[in-house]
Amino acid sequence: MKHYIGIDLGGTNTKIGVVDSEGNLINSKIIKTHSHQNVDKTLERIWETAKKLILEKEIPLFSVVGIGIGIPGPVKNQSTVGFFANFDWEKNLNLKEKMEKLSGIETRIENDANIIAQGEAIFGAAKGKKSSITIAIGTGIGGGIFYNGNLISGMSGVGGEIGHMKVVKDGKTCGCGQNGCFEAYASASSLVKEAKERLKLNEDNLLFKEINGDLDELEAKNIFDAARKGDQFSKDLIEYESDYLALGIGNLLNIINPECIVISGGISLAGDEILLPIKEKLKKYTMPPALENLEIKIGTLGNEAGVKGAVALFI
Amino acid sequence: MKHYIGIDLGGTNTKIGVVDSEGNLINSKIIKTHSHQNVDKTLERIWETAKKLILEKEIPLFSVVGIGIGIPGPVKNQSTVGFFANFDWEKNLNLKEKMEKLSGIETRIENDANIIAQGEAIFGAAKGKKSSITIAIGTGIGGGIFYNGNLISGMSGVGGEIGHMKVVKDGKTCGCGQNGCFEAYASASSLVKEAKERLKLNEDNLLFKEINGDLDELEAKNIFDAARKGDQFSKDLIEYESDYLALGIGNLLNIINPECIVISGGISLAGDEILLPIKEKLKKYTMPPALENLEIKIGTLGNEAGVKGAVALFI
Repeated sequence: MKHYIGIDLGGTNTKIGVVDSEGNLINSKIIKTHSHQNVDKTLERIWETAKKLILEKEIPLFSVVGIGIGIPGPVKNQSTVGFFANFDWEKNLNLKEKMEKLSGIETRIENDANIIAQGEAIFGAAKGKKSSITIAIGTGIGGGIFYNGNLISGMSGVGGEIGHMKVVKDGKTCGCGQNGCFEAYASASSLVKEAKERLKLNEDNLLFKEINGDLDELEAKNIFDAARKGDQFSKDLIEYESDYLALGIGNLLNIINPECIVISGGISLAGDEILLPIKEKLKKYTMPPALENLEIKIGTLGNEAGVKGAVALFI
Repeated sequence: MKHYIGIDLGGTNTKIGVVDSEGNLINSKIIKTHSHQNVDKTLERIWETAKKLILEKEIPLFSVVGIGIGIPGPVKNQSTVGFFANFDWEKNLNLKEKMEKLSGIETRIENDANIIAQGEAIFGAAKGKKSSITIAIGTGIGGGIFYNGNLISGMSGVGGEIGHMKVVKDGKTCGCGQNGCFEAYASASSLVKEAKERLKLNEDNLLFKEINGDLDELEAKNIFDAARKGDQFSKDLIEYESDYLALGIGNLLNIINPECIVISGGISLAGDEILLPIKEKLKKYTMPPALENLEIKIGTLGNEAGVKGAVALFI
């Protein structure tokens, strides 16, 4: 049996896992990224941890044939990182080369949202589908497009940056500095922001009561919980959220026409409560043939998506 | 030298051409489609015409190794036509099989907008690029996405239907029956429609004068001509047109991140007068790395795009 190392390199923490070719997570550990040290130091600590994880399970090192790394930033040709979204490491860094030199094992690098899409396509909710788009909805909206066995990562690694598709011309300002981005309307954080604005004007609802009027406490989960209990104010917020999600997803369906859409990230915890309204509203925004035989599912890899997806680059 | 037959099957006319493997059009003819007869009759007339074109140039029939057909409608697996946009031929028709039975030559079918994209990618403006998106802007907006050697035509042939991406939520009604579609804002017809609405309120401009106040005479060309002569009213219309085009193209760049965008169709005749404002406005709508090294060009195949593109399916 072949083994692989999957690495989910995050701003604060880095998750390292040993995964077999069927996608089983055999051993894993989370370490601090400490990106301020420098890229070489961080890679060394990651590689030392990986070797320990292999040793602990008595896996022969020669059976480890690939290292996959997910990066917060655009990646070209599964090797060069355009820039790291959160660290001050140098631009256009060939991380593949560095890791291969250190470990002697073939390494592939990919953007973290693309990695999740690859993971869901190979081991997760879209397993067996020829084409799928995975949409990770949390603080922002990340996406990855899997088409006929490959990720569409584009000329400079921007492919799949669906969160910055414009859904309102000259609309709300996004964290990226541009206006009207999909994630400025439909990310979990944007939903919470919209809810807070409405709560400032309307306190007569269950949601306000459930958070004891403390807007700083509000999370997307509270909105779905209150809606489930019948709160119309919260239902209206889900209407808003699902309408923008349907618009963005409908655009992707018209452009790519995949077999499967996978929803992952924080919002996906709402399950059918977000899937059903999206499905209903997609009819307004999508060419009908693209909806025939389309499957829309919640991602199945959860917290393991980063590590398993990095390994899926080799499968 | 191998030869191919390219067929551009249109609502009224069908263009048939003999093309060599370098993309040179050797002989061609336009016949009436007469789709009301039925599909078999039409294919027979097309095939008889193709044989005559081959004979006229004394090309040996055995050197003709492929037939490509462009269709107004979605096509699955380069064989089955979901439906024909303008004819009452049956749904889910395997046109590839029919043509192969008739001719004995391998046949590939594709949506007409995808065909133009394939043609520009193989023989035209995006020749040599690994990825390109061709946007045909005329009565509607059609698109085709060429990525790493293949068209993204999707599960049911809807891939590349960028004209129905929504650019304004619940916006203007489109010919497709949905609202806010890209083509309802940025097609040549939509530009003309917008111009007419504005001319009804404002007759004090060069554009109104140039068409002698006859709104029925107005074409997109008049607007570009008047703008070139300094008419501010017409410049404002080009501002409107290029802004929506930039928004739609920016979305595609964030999603696919191709090496090249090709503008074809009627609007492309405006050349730099439309390209330059699009390029300027793209900065508002596109993630910066997707603009680095991006080429935006006018298509070069013109009226031959349909025939040459159909042949390009084999190259």
